Amino acid sequence: MFSDIVKANRSYRRFFEQEAVTRETLLTLVDYARLVPAGANKQALKYYIACEQPLNGQIFATLGWAAYLKDWSGPVAGERPAAYIIIVQDKGYKMGNSFDAGIAAQTILLGATEIGLGGCMLGNIKHAQLQAALNLADNFEILLVIALGKPKEKVVIEEIEANGDIKYWRDENQVHHVPKRKLKDILI
Amino acid sequence: MFSDIVKANRSYRRFFEQEAVTRETLLTLVDYARLVPAGANKQALKYYIACEQPLNGQIFATLGWAAYLKDWSGPVAGERPAAYIIIVQDKGYKMGNSFDAGIAAQTILLGATEIGLGGCMLGNIKHAQLQAALNLADNFEILLVIALGKPKEKVVIEEIEANGDIKYWRDENQVHHVPKRKLKDILI
Repeated sequence: MFSDIVKANRSYRRFFEQEAVTRETLLTLVDYARLVPAGANKQALKYYIACEQPLNGQIFATLGWAAYLKDWSGPVAGERPAAYIIIVQDKGYKMGNSFDAGIAAQTILLGATEIGLGGCMLGNIKHAQLQAALNLADNFEILLVIALGKPKEKVVIEEIEANGDIKYWRDENQVHHVPKRKLKDILI
Repeated sequence: MFSDIVKANRSYRRFFEQEAVTRETLLTLVDYARLVPAGANKQALKYYIACEQPLNGQIFATLGWAAYLKDWSGPVAGERPAAYIIIVQDKGYKMGNSFDAGIAAQTILLGATEIGLGGCMLGNIKHAQLQAALNLADNFEILLVIALGKPKEKVVIEEIEANGDIKYWRDENQVHHVPKRKLKDILI
């Protein structure tokens, strides 16, 4: 059921790093993104995939994690992503709208969830450093990084009041809690 | 299989308008959007749902359709959307990034596809007119309109060459063809 995939698709930031995600799996996920709607069908997005060291480590070094967890600077070695899909705009094409990367990224993460993987969209990126690590030409602009792997944490959705705090937190058992607004509060 | 949903999730613009989409179905779809990732978990998006006349007609009047089909100004009466979900930013909240509406809209459309519905994201909107039709206060900014219904057209994906034309077209049998780049051409 699609609803099960949507519920299971949480943002995961700790992984069983030794559980490899193959290049073939990443290509399957990018092929999903290939088929999604794009503003005016422009298809200005391109995809860089990584699933090996030392490249994984070079990508990791450019990312900022979980800004609300002030005492956690990101996953430790052994719990880092096993793979990445980096969504890039090819500036040789016009973007049809600003939402395309979200459409593609969510489709990739839902596809990953179906096969027992999980991940996180990361926008806190040292762009110049990642551009250099990937050896990307100037006509490519990095929009989003998707970290992927086999999740090694439990993430729970909590309901919040309309004007409540949206900051996620971890409890003493390292369970990650994410407050989401109630349905009635997001309807106009 | 998720891959089947992704393939079946085409942009549909002609519908069996008399096949109603219930308010309950729309609420199920918005509830999926409630659970998706949002930049910094800000959850600044809200949702306006419509599935009845005369409101449907008022919304329809504000939309531009399929810019590449120069001899088609949009679906005729009887083939118009049976429902709409309008994604709005509540300006009382900061957006975590610019991709959130895409994440939400794609999740809604994939959910609709699973239950035999289809639709289209529309960004060509007469904003002031739609804002007035929906009686939306100034703190709401319309980002995207999702048209929904039971599809009454066949949409086929075509592969294009790397530098080929991305414009979709209709053939003499009213089949809608959408060129998509090849997998090898979207990989860096």
